[in-house]
Amino acid sequence: MKIISRVFLFIIFRLVPRNVSWSSLMLVGKVFSIRGGVGSCIVRPLARLFTCPSNMAKSKFEYVRNFETDDTCLRNCYIVVRLDGRNFHKFAEQHKFTKPNDDRALGLMSRSAHSVMEELEDIVIAYGQSDEFSFVFKRTSTWFKRRASKLMTHVASQFSSSYVFYWKEFFGEQPLLYPPGFDGRVVLYPSNRNLKDYLSWRQADCHINNMYNTVFWTLVQRGGLTTVQAEDRLKGTLAADKNEILFSEFDINYNNESSLHRKGTTLIWEKRDETVTKRLKLPNEEEKDVHVTRSRRRVQAYHCDIIGEQFWEEHPDILEDDNS
Amino acid sequence: MKIISRVFLFIIFRLVPRNVSWSSLMLVGKVFSIRGGVGSCIVRPLARLFTCPSNMAKSKFEYVRNFETDDTCLRNCYIVVRLDGRNFHKFAEQHKFTKPNDDRALGLMSRSAHSVMEELEDIVIAYGQSDEFSFVFKRTSTWFKRRASKLMTHVASQFSSSYVFYWKEFFGEQPLLYPPGFDGRVVLYPSNRNLKDYLSWRQADCHINNMYNTVFWTLVQRGGLTTVQAEDRLKGTLAADKNEILFSEFDINYNNESSLHRKGTTLIWEKRDETVTKRLKLPNEEEKDVHVTRSRRRVQAYHCDIIGEQFWEEHPDILEDDNS
Amino acid sequence: MKIISRVFLFIIFRLVPRNVSWSSLMLVGKVFSIRGGVGSCIVRPLARLFTCPSNMAKSKFEYVRNFETDDTCLRNCYIVVRLDGRNFHKFAEQHKFTKPNDDRALGLMSRSAHSVMEELEDIVIAYGQSDEFSFVFKRTSTWFKRRASKLMTHVASQFSSSYVFYWKEFFGEQPLLYPPGFDGRVVLYPSNRNLKDYLSWRQADCHINNMYNTVFWTLVQRGGLTTVQAEDRLKGTLAADKNEILFSEFDINYNNESSLHRKGTTLIWEKRDETVTKRLKLPNEEEKDVHVTRSRRRVQAYHCDIIGEQFWEEHPDILEDDNS
Amino acid sequence: MKIISRVFLFIIFRLVPRNVSWSSLMLVGKVFSIRGGVGSCIVRPLARLFTCPSNMAKSKFEYVRNFETDDTCLRNCYIVVRLDGRNFHKFAEQHKFTKPNDDRALGLMSRSAHSVMEELEDIVIAYGQSDEFSFVFKRTSTWFKRRASKLMTHVASQFSSSYVFYWKEFFGEQPLLYPPGFDGRVVLYPSNRNLKDYLSWRQADCHINNMYNTVFWTLVQRGGLTTVQAEDRLKGTLAADKNEILFSEFDINYNNESSLHRKGTTLIWEKRDETVTKRLKLPNEEEKDVHVTRSRRRVQAYHCDIIGEQFWEEHPDILEDDNS
Repeated sequence: MKIISRVFLFIIFRLVPRNVSWSSLMLVGKVFSIRGGVGSCIVRPLARLFTCPSNMAKSKFEYVRNFETDDTCLRNCYIVVRLDGRNFHKFAEQHKFTKPNDDRALGLMSRSAHSVMEELEDIVIAYGQSDEFSFVFKRTSTWFKRRASKLMTHVASQFSSSYVFYWKEFFGEQPLLYPPGFDGRVVLYPSNRNLKDYLSWRQADCHINNMYNTVFWTLVQRGGLTTVQAEDRLKGTLAADKNEILFSEFDINYNNESSLHRKGTTLIWEKRDETVTKRLKLPNEEEKDVHVTRSRRRVQAYHCDIIGEQFWEEHPDILEDDNS
Repeated sequence: MKIISRVFLFIIFRLVPRNVSWSSLMLVGKVFSIRGGVGSCIVRPLARLFTCPSNMAKSKFEYVRNFETDDTCLRNCYIVVRLDGRNFHKFAEQHKFTKPNDDRALGLMSRSAHSVMEELEDIVIAYGQSDEFSFVFKRTSTWFKRRASKLMTHVASQFSSSYVFYWKEFFGEQPLLYPPGFDGRVVLYPSNRNLKDYLSWRQADCHINNMYNTVFWTLVQRGGLTTVQAEDRLKGTLAADKNEILFSEFDINYNNESSLHRKGTTLIWEKRDETVTKRLKLPNEEEKDVHVTRSRRRVQAYHCDIIGEQFWEEHPDILEDDNS
Repeated sequence: MKIISRVFLFIIFRLVPRNVSWSSLMLVGKVFSIRGGVGSCIVRPLARLFTCPSNMAKSKFEYVRNFETDDTCLRNCYIVVRLDGRNFHKFAEQHKFTKPNDDRALGLMSRSAHSVMEELEDIVIAYGQSDEFSFVFKRTSTWFKRRASKLMTHVASQFSSSYVFYWKEFFGEQPLLYPPGFDGRVVLYPSNRNLKDYLSWRQADCHINNMYNTVFWTLVQRGGLTTVQAEDRLKGTLAADKNEILFSEFDINYNNESSLHRKGTTLIWEKRDETVTKRLKLPNEEEKDVHVTRSRRRVQAYHCDIIGEQFWEEHPDILEDDNS
Repeated sequence: MKIISRVFLFIIFRLVPRNVSWSSLMLVGKVFSIRGGVGSCIVRPLARLFTCPSNMAKSKFEYVRNFETDDTCLRNCYIVVRLDGRNFHKFAEQHKFTKPNDDRALGLMSRSAHSVMEELEDIVIAYGQSDEFSFVFKRTSTWFKRRASKLMTHVASQFSSSYVFYWKEFFGEQPLLYPPGFDGRVVLYPSNRNLKDYLSWRQADCHINNMYNTVFWTLVQRGGLTTVQAEDRLKGTLAADKNEILFSEFDINYNNESSLHRKGTTLIWEKRDETVTKRLKLPNEEEKDVHVTRSRRRVQAYHCDIIGEQFWEEHPDILEDDNS
């Protein structure tokens, strides 16, 4: 009887017209597998009689690929991907980040950004502060055909997996309680001026937030105010007022505070000559040590002002000329 | 002399017109900080004299926000985010994944997808196989205003951090060598038919690849062929030929192979009644145990056919009506 | 000397390296043409010595094509292009359109829309009122690869040229004072429900505006109010109030007003059998008249309700099934 | 009985809950109007009893507006809209355009482009040749919020209506047989270099096509070749070969041909001082003629090279600095 069912199946397969759907064939397959025990079948199935339901099926469904739309980034523009931590206020509390800045957390952010720059192509500069990091792809990049979705998901993914992977390096035995999330976006900047203004905007944001947080937590931690009182105290104050509170009440000169906190972290590529010794075999069978100097590029971190022109003049290779 | 420099600074700040750039002000700041030692200054600065360079700066640069473009997904369409492992061929080799399927790796993929479904909003079904996973947001979702970039980066990020976070649960002491990457994309499907065809396309792909890999690795592992020989052997074969090789040469009925491998993994939400006992305080100060039954939804995994109608008929709540 | 300059030119052309720009070659050409009088030159130039600056130039500049981005409309969605008259308030005044409705102007709009439907592909229904017209491309259309820019500019262009072309048919000797403008937009609708709701939205808009305008201009033209008084009178009134004004003060039943004004114009394709007589030559050299009936489709105008289901039930061919 | 039906209707309106659809109310309206003759009704309807179905309806359908997606052009980029004639090969034949160039047709194209520049905002330069015209909006334009659809449909519409409107000025009594169509597209260029290269690309295209057409039609019209023979003769020839055919066989120096044909048409804005005489009333009641000089800008046409730098140096106001 099993032989019969098998032969029956062959006939079905053979008779199936080309436009029959995969799912109806699957039902046939289901019947077949329910009967099971085909292993004991002694008649060799005539393989060539089978039509190929899977290819048929694939081509029947493959039209769905055409629903993908093109999201190529406009040429000759800098592509910026910015990541932001999701619910990092809560994340920071649950992981007992120190206030106003936690150097372990900032180090881990930079380490993850470093990993992104090394694993992905064409990132010329990255800037981060607090729970955000921006990555700038060079304007002539053709990585992943400049498809916005590919660029931003790759950055988000590599950053996030690195954040968990390197956690221990910065937090030691303190456990990571759950996998954190970061969201991302893509923004295009057509000119060097626009790109520099973007980075300036982020660094100005760093400055404003860090000054506020520095005063706020100084008032709380050293001044004995409650968080509500500190908030009230700072309502409506300008930068100068905050400087003055720090200086006159706590003897703190804000400009002497850590540049990591005041300026954030800028990552760029830097070339360095590396000399290695290599043992060379000469034609006359002798061997000889030779010094080989290679130019190697590595990611370098800065905590300096990138709003003024000085940084850009000192690193003229980061940006390409607008009219090249 | 310090007093003078400080007063001088106030005057500068005061005289600075509103359209002077932040960077020029920073230079002032730089001079200031180089002179340093302001802490010993005994004259209280008149705080209100300071203008606020930071706000000015922020608004000067803030125009760069307008370069962000809107990527809202068309309403009333299913939003599918598909992730693919980056260089997972190499990743699998370096982490010695078993061939043709590594159940630890597949389990970790599902665990990470599970985490995505729980952490993010509005995902109604997810389907994964090999190193890919697709997530379907319900067609009426307004999560993150349906912004494509937010949705896909959140998925990519949460999945990637979860992959590293849960690695140990599946690979035990075998270390993760480096943080892996996944890329993502967004595709919209306007009708239930289109969405089901998308999922069918991915499951048909699973079927085709798994059948090929099953035969290929059986030929290599049990048949003693080299990989090159196995490849040659399979060139041009149809599904039926592959079935026949498995059956006649290795006594394997493909339909009896693991459904996890043949069908991939489908994750959906399922409601379950959960009964818990709560101790209630009565008005008369007595206490009493009451049973409270709540409907809870949890992510449930299936390894079944989703190409045919049966699965959808059994789970009518996954999809919304096309004309609702 | 001319011979020399000519030979000199050949040499220049020959020596020009491949990466020299077109513009520098143009300068050469300019010198050449300034010297002029080459017609009298007696030495035949060796044509093959010329390299082709123009092709070189074209390929040098052609990279700019890559800045075009793809704007393909999502598959399986209705594509709606809506046109709106630009500054038509002023246009109507300058061309002395009658108030509240000018049947010549409405007729010209419909005539232009008719022309769009006949000249372009795949438009299944169009709806217009006042100075706007919406065109619906069928959801499976692949005209111009569904590129939004092509579809909307074609509609805007054909409509606008037709408006001027057919002006005389509706306005006779009254001259068109200047070429009018229409802007357009593309909107996608994934389901039949959404599309019908779109058209309902436009017809509801027609109803509201026409009722307002009818009462307003009746108050002015027959009631003797100034436009300011009429506006005041209508402030805050509901549909019922307006109905009541028309009925009790002017003995007008709004429902008896022209359906063209109340319902706007719906254009669809209709099949009709057309019988023509053809003279046929028989094999025996005789001739014979035969009646040939062909099904022909033409654009048909309706001024009826399209919000309710009746219209759609009577014309089941306009929309495609959501799950086909 | 009519009174009854009317009162009945009021009651219906009153009882209709807020979530009842417009279409069901319309059915009520239909019944009402079929009964007709309400004009003779003597009972004043209580207007305030009516609820307003139309507003309800509008808000019920208005959700469809949210399906419009944003197509804002990236800031700080030149926005180019290029129009192309639809089926102009056939159009040219049907309207007996002279070969290889019809000056009436070229004049009409320029006239229409002129109209576009004057009617629309922020177009700084336009370039046309054959049946195409490109319009460049300044990079800082905010016209229509930089929405691509608005910009391109406005250009396509204004150009097309102008083409028909001004036809008579160029073709006199020769009638326009049907309304022509133009399609359009939007391309963004981030830098001056890119924009100039775009315009150079179009002018190089003009050059190549015009040279080909000039030789081709000279061979046919003066050389007596058939079009097939002329095509064969030109197969594989370079620019220099074509120059040589014109020169040696027909005594034509291509560089002396009309610059309109060789270079196309460039339209820019030019400022001119215009002096008008105005009669002024003096305080002492006397009158006096005064000369008022105003700077006026008008569209000016050029038929010159725009690939080299000279044109741009002579008109420095057209482009904005890349880093402004």
